[in-house]
Amino acid sequence: MIVAQQVADARQAVSDARRSDRRIGCVPTMGALHPGHESLIRACRDECGFTVVTIFVNPTQFGPQEDFNRYPRPLEDDLAICRRLEVDLVFAPVVDTLYPAGFGTFVDVEQLSHTLEGAARPGHFRGVATIVLKLLNIVQPARAYFGQKDYQQQLVVRKICRELDLPVEIHTCPTIREPDGLALSSRNRYLDAGERRTALSLYRSLQLAEERLRSGERDVRMIAGQMRQLLEETGARVDYATIVDPQSLDELTAPAQNMVALVAAYVGRTRLIDNLPITIDQLR
Amino acid sequence: MIVAQQVADARQAVSDARRSDRRIGCVPTMGALHPGHESLIRACRDECGFTVVTIFVNPTQFGPQEDFNRYPRPLEDDLAICRRLEVDLVFAPVVDTLYPAGFGTFVDVEQLSHTLEGAARPGHFRGVATIVLKLLNIVQPARAYFGQKDYQQQLVVRKICRELDLPVEIHTCPTIREPDGLALSSRNRYLDAGERRTALSLYRSLQLAEERLRSGERDVRMIAGQMRQLLEETGARVDYATIVDPQSLDELTAPAQNMVALVAAYVGRTRLIDNLPITIDQLR
Repeated sequence: MIVAQQVADARQAVSDARRSDRRIGCVPTMGALHPGHESLIRACRDECGFTVVTIFVNPTQFGPQEDFNRYPRPLEDDLAICRRLEVDLVFAPVVDTLYPAGFGTFVDVEQLSHTLEGAARPGHFRGVATIVLKLLNIVQPARAYFGQKDYQQQLVVRKICRELDLPVEIHTCPTIREPDGLALSSRNRYLDAGERRTALSLYRSLQLAEERLRSGERDVRMIAGQMRQLLEETGARVDYATIVDPQSLDELTAPAQNMVALVAAYVGRTRLIDNLPITIDQLR
Repeated sequence: MIVAQQVADARQAVSDARRSDRRIGCVPTMGALHPGHESLIRACRDECGFTVVTIFVNPTQFGPQEDFNRYPRPLEDDLAICRRLEVDLVFAPVVDTLYPAGFGTFVDVEQLSHTLEGAARPGHFRGVATIVLKLLNIVQPARAYFGQKDYQQQLVVRKICRELDLPVEIHTCPTIREPDGLALSSRNRYLDAGERRTALSLYRSLQLAEERLRSGERDVRMIAGQMRQLLEETGARVDYATIVDPQSLDELTAPAQNMVALVAAYVGRTRLIDNLPITIDQLR
């Protein structure tokens, strides 16, 4: 496994692989790898001849009051996981490498990046779009893998790739959950035992939405209110709890065939998100 | 010569050329080709094995009151020029191909794109940066060629390529002028005979700046004032006339070894720009 810190070294490794006709796949991560990331890496390994994992805690997607400094950075553990999964190249640059002094080029995605996570975290998707574009330009993969847990993020990434004409296929892999349903997240390690119990209410609220919709309830706003109530009763502080169109993320007022329920809430100091696509074959 | 209107056809032609190990060069233009563009195409042909010219009048870089609709589009003449210069591929898409309904991804360059042309034409460089990134992603050239006549534009393009990690070399080619000094521009064809005479004052003002600086004058602001005066005396309406740092475009208050004089002015309804790099080996 090659570990590159410099852009030129990463490019060289990828370019060598490309010359031997291996399809390049890329899994962009912020490290603190968990089985959710592992599933992305496995999907990449199954479909591509050369698997690149990028590990970079991207400062431009964190707000000034957010957890950039305390975000976990267990690089040696991450490299061990990558070795075990037979990753070909890990690109793990330091901040100054990707954002040298005077840096000032950013990618903005209208609408999609200003709702939900974008509304709660101003500038977040500007940072995400910019770093993803940079990493994809460095690695130039045929495919890149993102988790469905960050539902809005993979939509934003798909949009920038499509609209900026990047020749890359975006694959979204299913959310991986703990046995009790909690979506895996690097931020789960912030939770103490009590918070860990409270955190389960995110998934429970999504299940509640699915049950109500499947049982034929047509008042979508009322269901969203019930999601919020369930979260608040367990002590979570809700950022949003909503049922939206899977592409536009516009809030729904009536059930549709395809929907996504999305939640974001603080559990203690830790902000968690989760989502559940809901499909109803026969609208009543 | 291949003429492609669709992204997939352009990509295919480039990909075939790349497989036969030809270095890809790209000259992005808005068409209405003149000898300035021809010099870019010739430089590309000299240095690359496969020359791509893109022809696209990019709506997102025009302000609502600007000349997008009347901008010249002599496509048959342009294709004849490209054939004569042995261009390999012309990519000439229609607007909807590059900006389908719902398009909303833009590249923003801080500072550099908000001064001078960016101040006079809000959003201009956002449009330029976005279309250049799109075209470079479609063509994926090893080198791309821009004219020095659009001095700030080539700086912005260099910055986005550097900061977004595009693996492309930007080459800037010297401004081509009429025998009397008028910089070639597709917009010169808007000028009537009287305006054509007035238009010469742009270059004259740049020459004035160079003479004064070479003669040892140290009051840069006074020189800028004289440039403006010269332009106004001929009936041009000045947007800016200034002497700046060649990289930051910060206005200079004292002479430096390397400077650029930049002017923008309306001659009748037509907005023209020009610039002159000025180097003084021995500052007094």
